[in-house]
Amino acid sequence: MNGRSKVYVEGARAGVRVPFTEVALSGGEAPVRLYDTSGPGSEPEVGLPRLRAHWIAEREGAGDTVEHGGAALPCRTQLHYAKQGVVTPEMEFVAVREGLDAEFVRAEIAAGRAILPANVNHAETEPMIIGKHFLTKINANIGTSAVSDSIAAEVEKLTWAVKWGADTVMDLSTGKHIHETREHIMRNSPVPIGTVPLYQALEKVDGDPVKLTWEVYRDTIVEQAEQGVDYMTVHAGVLLRYVPLAAERVTGIVSRGGSIMAAWCLAHHRENFLYEHFRELCEIFAEYDIAFSLGDGLRPGSIADANDEAQFAELRTLGELTHIAWEYDVQVMVEGPGHVPMHKIKENVDLQQEICGEAPFYTLGPLTTDIAPAYDHITSAIGAAMIGWFGTAMLCYVTPKEHLGLPNREDVKEGVIAYKIAAHAADLAKGHPQAQAWDDALSKARFEFRWQDQFNLALDPDRAREYHDETLPAEPAKTAHFCSMCGPKFCSMKISQELKEYAAKGMADKSEEFAASGGRVYLPVVDQ
Amino acid sequence: MNGRSKVYVEGARAGVRVPFTEVALSGGEAPVRLYDTSGPGSEPEVGLPRLRAHWIAEREGAGDTVEHGGAALPCRTQLHYAKQGVVTPEMEFVAVREGLDAEFVRAEIAAGRAILPANVNHAETEPMIIGKHFLTKINANIGTSAVSDSIAAEVEKLTWAVKWGADTVMDLSTGKHIHETREHIMRNSPVPIGTVPLYQALEKVDGDPVKLTWEVYRDTIVEQAEQGVDYMTVHAGVLLRYVPLAAERVTGIVSRGGSIMAAWCLAHHRENFLYEHFRELCEIFAEYDIAFSLGDGLRPGSIADANDEAQFAELRTLGELTHIAWEYDVQVMVEGPGHVPMHKIKENVDLQQEICGEAPFYTLGPLTTDIAPAYDHITSAIGAAMIGWFGTAMLCYVTPKEHLGLPNREDVKEGVIAYKIAAHAADLAKGHPQAQAWDDALSKARFEFRWQDQFNLALDPDRAREYHDETLPAEPAKTAHFCSMCGPKFCSMKISQELKEYAAKGMADKSEEFAASGGRVYLPVVDQ
Repeated sequence: MNGRSKVYVEGARAGVRVPFTEVALSGGEAPVRLYDTSGPGSEPEVGLPRLRAHWIAEREGAGDTVEHGGAALPCRTQLHYAKQGVVTPEMEFVAVREGLDAEFVRAEIAAGRAILPANVNHAETEPMIIGKHFLTKINANIGTSAVSDSIAAEVEKLTWAVKWGADTVMDLSTGKHIHETREHIMRNSPVPIGTVPLYQALEKVDGDPVKLTWEVYRDTIVEQAEQGVDYMTVHAGVLLRYVPLAAERVTGIVSRGGSIMAAWCLAHHRENFLYEHFRELCEIFAEYDIAFSLGDGLRPGSIADANDEAQFAELRTLGELTHIAWEYDVQVMVEGPGHVPMHKIKENVDLQQEICGEAPFYTLGPLTTDIAPAYDHITSAIGAAMIGWFGTAMLCYVTPKEHLGLPNREDVKEGVIAYKIAAHAADLAKGHPQAQAWDDALSKARFEFRWQDQFNLALDPDRAREYHDETLPAEPAKTAHFCSMCGPKFCSMKISQELKEYAAKGMADKSEEFAASGGRVYLPVVDQ
Repeated sequence: MNGRSKVYVEGARAGVRVPFTEVALSGGEAPVRLYDTSGPGSEPEVGLPRLRAHWIAEREGAGDTVEHGGAALPCRTQLHYAKQGVVTPEMEFVAVREGLDAEFVRAEIAAGRAILPANVNHAETEPMIIGKHFLTKINANIGTSAVSDSIAAEVEKLTWAVKWGADTVMDLSTGKHIHETREHIMRNSPVPIGTVPLYQALEKVDGDPVKLTWEVYRDTIVEQAEQGVDYMTVHAGVLLRYVPLAAERVTGIVSRGGSIMAAWCLAHHRENFLYEHFRELCEIFAEYDIAFSLGDGLRPGSIADANDEAQFAELRTLGELTHIAWEYDVQVMVEGPGHVPMHKIKENVDLQQEICGEAPFYTLGPLTTDIAPAYDHITSAIGAAMIGWFGTAMLCYVTPKEHLGLPNREDVKEGVIAYKIAAHAADLAKGHPQAQAWDDALSKARFEFRWQDQFNLALDPDRAREYHDETLPAEPAKTAHFCSMCGPKFCSMKISQELKEYAAKGMADKSEEFAASGGRVYLPVVDQ
């Protein structure tokens, strides 16, 4: 991409080097720096450099226990350090990345309003933060399934997703080679990786949820913790008594994890073992610094089921669990829906923020209508933009294949771009101090017919260039004061530029001069 | 499309036959009827049947004058009849189409809150209504330009646009053969056609706005009126004194019509001739029943320029003109932006509704960010859905080529589908009584693994089917109780269906039975 390059900005502390995409502009404009998730690039077989290894080793042993129930438990979480007043190198990295103060970053983490997912065994990550006072983040799901399972394809999807802007990636593999696939993903990921450990636990009991046990699940957690998984979706809020609430729904339980746990509860007629063993989970998560992503197993899967009692009953339990996790200094975010019509979106954020003490909200879409399978990246980008504006910290993408099949490479890109749009629209609406500079730079380039600058500033420079060139491929058209939409005579931008000049000089006395030169305005000028 | 067919529903009055797409469902479900814009289909060289010819002829001479300034002026508008208490066949058609009472339709038109665009010379239209208490409508723009001009291609785009759901089409041709292109479009269009007459007027004066005159413009209006254009964008609100307000903007004036009129005002240092001759326009519009689409020539073209003084100054003038048009019983809608960040969208609708006496609002998007050229159907679908919910009656589509080039056939489809999504999401949010039945039918089909029903109910059945078949092409997969997203073992819908059955029977006593049959739930059942 001509005009775009990766630059690093140094933090105050040695070793804190934060990547940005720098877009060089023509015509004397200052370059624009954009948030960059693509990572340093790696040989898949070698893996990425272990950026954080030194930082993690350095703080080893120093105050890394948390007091609980009279015992001193190992605790190496960013929340733990933040509460002790320590600004870690990770927090400093994030501060440079977001253009905010490091102390502000620490305070937001300490308050539980933001998380910095960073398993001590995933030293390859470039630190990032998820919280409503920061840039809205997006997650891309990848993963093998029983029907389609290639490790190479998944690593390729990971690299592809972060190239286009995914802030975290969830590995939702359910097929064979789950451990091996994840190992390749971990070692090649510059972004935090999330998983749903229940999927692998279920594989270990031959896919029969009735055979699931706390022990199998715990062993799976530890296995994934050792590999470096940064956050895990845990469906601990699907309580036995909530299952009947979902029975009368149009689409029942649509979360895979939720339906598995519901099946287990029902089969044993016992309370969800994840709920009952939640404090043990907290101890493990504290040791590795894994963040909870409290799963909404009872999220609505259709417009008809939005904001119902099943959904909100579970949310109240997630609030209870959030506060328990905080007792152990474990970082927490809370998952949200799903399918929600526009007028019911805000209630979701408001309730979650109230019940969960402002812990970051992490939603799937929501889809604002059910009628458009094959276009659910769009039905959900609408809901995602709105819920981001209302205070959701991270948006889980939806691809055009949602409800229909597994996303391929192109679907992953479509999903990521749609969600970058939603996230940025949210950042504009919530008034993030840095968001609008990007829009202004692009619009200024557009108005001044700096086509190459416009392409380079675009979320997808390749496609912007390709679409422009479809009708006007010639090189001079890249500096022409019109495009094929209106042709040279009708270009409002061009007329308007002339008007701007005249207006600037004072209007009345210039009308004659303008009239005299009127013809010039409409000539198809092509700059050389 | 298997399972979909066109049916006609008869109104109370003979000859009122309203088309619907009927989706036949399997498994004993009642068929679903969807709003259908595709028209009866035509031979392009012959044109469509003149559905309304008899209705128009029938009322000829009866009360078709309006008193103004002591004179009796010819007036054949739906607003005129509505105010006299007459329910026209067009209103009855619309009532059946929307599932509402004909008297309600009449009252909304009489109050100016809705328009029924229906030039007496465009008898081919199937009547439709634009107003906030009706289904949200969408418009697709087509048209030749200096760079690309094929009549056949434009008629093909028209047919294609209405096939996918465009409620009206604007012919924005600016190249050669404007009259001829429009004639072909009029005679083949089952939906109302809108134009921006200024474009053709400008062609008549060799593209030099300084040479534009009221006389040239008026003649162009009459020429297009005779052809049957149903609504016309008139940029009468771009007043001389507003032009300097746009000078300091990031993107100046981005409306083509707006920039042309601004250039004229400035060159002559005179007031906009469309504003000065507005009452003469009203007289012509009344005679043919052309609806005004009051153009927002000063709409913002970037996030930076949204909701500024230039925009709102013009809006106040559009309010003044709305009330003048109503004196002549001419139907009016008002155009709106443009580029607007989410938090500034609602103010646009609220102000327009207040200033323009609830005349229908008709907006272009708005785009909620500037950073995604090549994806502006998505940046703007977000804004369109929201502004529709807030009370905008019609949404003008934006294609992926916006800002970059002329849309081709595929771009037109992408734009229409994105806007059908936005419009339907708006209908759900504003609680249109018929909207949610469609979502519920599709979600129920999804939950019950009626794949063919799901495809047939989809906004784009072709693509939904294609995406599903990409990974699971075999015919039995169409009735399988899973898809390739999760594979058979992890299908939450499937597990959930089983849970529903158990829950319905009462939970506690059934847990044992469920456990015993647990294995069955996860077998990849493929129904025959």
